[in-house]
Amino acid sequence: MPSRQESRTLSRVPGQQPQVVIVGGGFGGLNAARALAHAPLQITLVDRRNHHVFQPLLYQVATAALSPAQIAAPIRKILRHQKNVEVVLAEATGVDLARRVLIVDALPYREIRYDYLILAAGATHSYFGRDDWATNAPGLKSIEDALEIRRRFLLAYEAAEREPDPQRRRALLTFVVVGAGPTGVELAGAISEISRTVIRRDFRRIDTSETRVILVEALDRVLPGGFPPEISARALRDLTELGVEVLLGSRVTSIDPKGVNVGDRRIDSHNVFWAAGVRASPLGAMLGAPVDAAGRVIVEPDLSIPGHPDVFVIGDLARVIDPATKCQVPGMCPGAIQMGRFVGGLIVADLARRGTPYPQFHYTDKGLLATIGRARAVAYVGGLKLVGWTAWVFWALLHVFFLIGFRNRLAVMLDWAWDYLFFDRGARLITGGRPAEKPE
Amino acid sequence: MPSRQESRTLSRVPGQQPQVVIVGGGFGGLNAARALAHAPLQITLVDRRNHHVFQPLLYQVATAALSPAQIAAPIRKILRHQKNVEVVLAEATGVDLARRVLIVDALPYREIRYDYLILAAGATHSYFGRDDWATNAPGLKSIEDALEIRRRFLLAYEAAEREPDPQRRRALLTFVVVGAGPTGVELAGAISEISRTVIRRDFRRIDTSETRVILVEALDRVLPGGFPPEISARALRDLTELGVEVLLGSRVTSIDPKGVNVGDRRIDSHNVFWAAGVRASPLGAMLGAPVDAAGRVIVEPDLSIPGHPDVFVIGDLARVIDPATKCQVPGMCPGAIQMGRFVGGLIVADLARRGTPYPQFHYTDKGLLATIGRARAVAYVGGLKLVGWTAWVFWALLHVFFLIGFRNRLAVMLDWAWDYLFFDRGARLITGGRPAEKPE
Repeated sequence: MPSRQESRTLSRVPGQQPQVVIVGGGFGGLNAARALAHAPLQITLVDRRNHHVFQPLLYQVATAALSPAQIAAPIRKILRHQKNVEVVLAEATGVDLARRVLIVDALPYREIRYDYLILAAGATHSYFGRDDWATNAPGLKSIEDALEIRRRFLLAYEAAEREPDPQRRRALLTFVVVGAGPTGVELAGAISEISRTVIRRDFRRIDTSETRVILVEALDRVLPGGFPPEISARALRDLTELGVEVLLGSRVTSIDPKGVNVGDRRIDSHNVFWAAGVRASPLGAMLGAPVDAAGRVIVEPDLSIPGHPDVFVIGDLARVIDPATKCQVPGMCPGAIQMGRFVGGLIVADLARRGTPYPQFHYTDKGLLATIGRARAVAYVGGLKLVGWTAWVFWALLHVFFLIGFRNRLAVMLDWAWDYLFFDRGARLITGGRPAEKPE
Repeated sequence: MPSRQESRTLSRVPGQQPQVVIVGGGFGGLNAARALAHAPLQITLVDRRNHHVFQPLLYQVATAALSPAQIAAPIRKILRHQKNVEVVLAEATGVDLARRVLIVDALPYREIRYDYLILAAGATHSYFGRDDWATNAPGLKSIEDALEIRRRFLLAYEAAEREPDPQRRRALLTFVVVGAGPTGVELAGAISEISRTVIRRDFRRIDTSETRVILVEALDRVLPGGFPPEISARALRDLTELGVEVLLGSRVTSIDPKGVNVGDRRIDSHNVFWAAGVRASPLGAMLGAPVDAAGRVIVEPDLSIPGHPDVFVIGDLARVIDPATKCQVPGMCPGAIQMGRFVGGLIVADLARRGTPYPQFHYTDKGLLATIGRARAVAYVGGLKLVGWTAWVFWALLHVFFLIGFRNRLAVMLDWAWDYLFFDRGARLITGGRPAEKPE
């Protein structure tokens, strides 16, 4: 095997600019592309969707606060001014490492040759081997997922309003959120809050403030990943004050169209949402490199895969252990952004044959944030613990700042201000599916 | 048969408030409900969708200028403060005139008793008996329709960018709009304009300004319904300047996935949109009253149906001849709004047993408007002909003013200002369907 530094540049076609192929237009892929903006190479970015999604705000689309276009932007538009990038709308289905081609499903393309390959295809939800639960408990990873959750959430009240049987009505007004990570906490908090404020005056027969929201978590606290225990305790208190029932140390054992079983306990509910597990894109496993239980590729310290220094895996698709802290880099935006930039810089250095020392990826912890409801959030940044209104303002400013495009920033800010002042939610539309369908 | 004035109130259950049932939350139904706001009766408004749609701006959702939530509002929210209305999300499937019940598909409701029934179920697109064309040439009547057209419109460029064969690429970049009424003109103008401005810099391999937009009209001019010929001539000139090819006096004879035949001429196109015909909701024909060729109910001068003075048909579902002009009231918002108010007022008067003279509906012509593109529109208002920038500003102000809710007005105005200044379109998302699907 050639040395790492050599093999990266060996295969290039003479007289042609090196080809970088990036799979995925999420935070990892986009930041890798941007880091290569001034490099003398050709980039092809492949995504099966035409838009980048700002995932931290997906739950706001799912709960009718924002419209899809406010948290998503066409990838072509984001990269419009970067002339060395070509965007291809296609699904990557495999990699031929020997021939150095990415295999895609889009006619007439079948294969895209690469000199450097960056896989940033992300992750989807995992039902821990119970994929049959997916129909009854949709997860939240894409715009389509968010619209499906919004549809079910709003239809539940419509069906309850029509339902004369008290027991069935109670099941329609019971929402179960599985998993108390940031997404689960945000979803449960928002649903509970909306039912007690925004939509209360809309209905004549039901009292929507009787809505039950149950948050089920297998571990012994909410926000278990990375937050200090005091923050978890505060988040639990906030959730409880918002009317969310939190079941800790509880494991979902089955999900059917009429409810869930949590241990021995039966909860009748027509609305179960899944925020519990993550599984990396199947593209990772196709590389032949070692993967962890969630399908994440276990990468080298420079984020390449063993034996193929020209193939990098970043973002949620990669399992990266930070050399300084020996901790796994969490599957959140800052990690993906940093990895994208790192790999971009590495390729630039490699092209310049600067003979830079063997690089290692280091993760800079940017802190943890979760919002719980109106003027309630928790944050843990640089050892600093923020709660309540302060944390919520910090959360809002940070998310608006990191949204892509000034237009979306402005639109989201205005919508939040409106919702805050008038207890409103702007996007309460039921679309898709059979319109008058009952959620059962 | 009892006299009209008597029978309207005969069937009431003693000691109970009269029941008004309205089918449809469009302009007709909503305005009828509002006109009854202070009357001592119970209103049930039935719609199969949870939202009212501002149909004149649907084409802006279809062409990625606006988001669905900006031109739609939950019916419950609109009527939130009107305590004598109950909203039911259900599809009306029939009417039992003898028993005075509306039949709906929503469990546990099956029947809703009425003393007065107002049918305002609107219209959908008509393929003139060729319903098999619907798959290849979607129409534009609902939010779902608009999102489907947006998806196809944006996917066409994506597929063209990947397509090496010039002939196939040309077919992908050819858009055919059938029907040159306001919707067809607006759709064709917007597509042509966007392809020449907004998205041009987004693509690397295709020149989107080579997009062909062909507007096919069976009659001999664009905007044939009601506009004076000079206005039609100006609209034709504006369209041509925007790059739209207009085929007048041309009839589509077949549509398949690869193109359309217009008379003897074959046009290869993967994107055909339908704006040609309108067919009233099938609910009209179920009444047993006479209907016209488009399925519209031919109503009495007071908008009731023959023999049933307690059943009214309004909006696009009704065929109304104005007694003064002897002209048919056009199927546009002002007509529906006026009919809704008229029927509301008639019921109020009937309840008060004022013995008002037998009322007749009169239509007030509010004029005609169509926008063609950036700073181009035509208007014909009170005999006044407006064209170009003046008409466009008038069009924009009027549409913003009539949007429901201050929030939507503000959001739409900001979006339009942004698009106008920066040649942008905010909602260029491809969602739904298989993401990387080719439009063929």
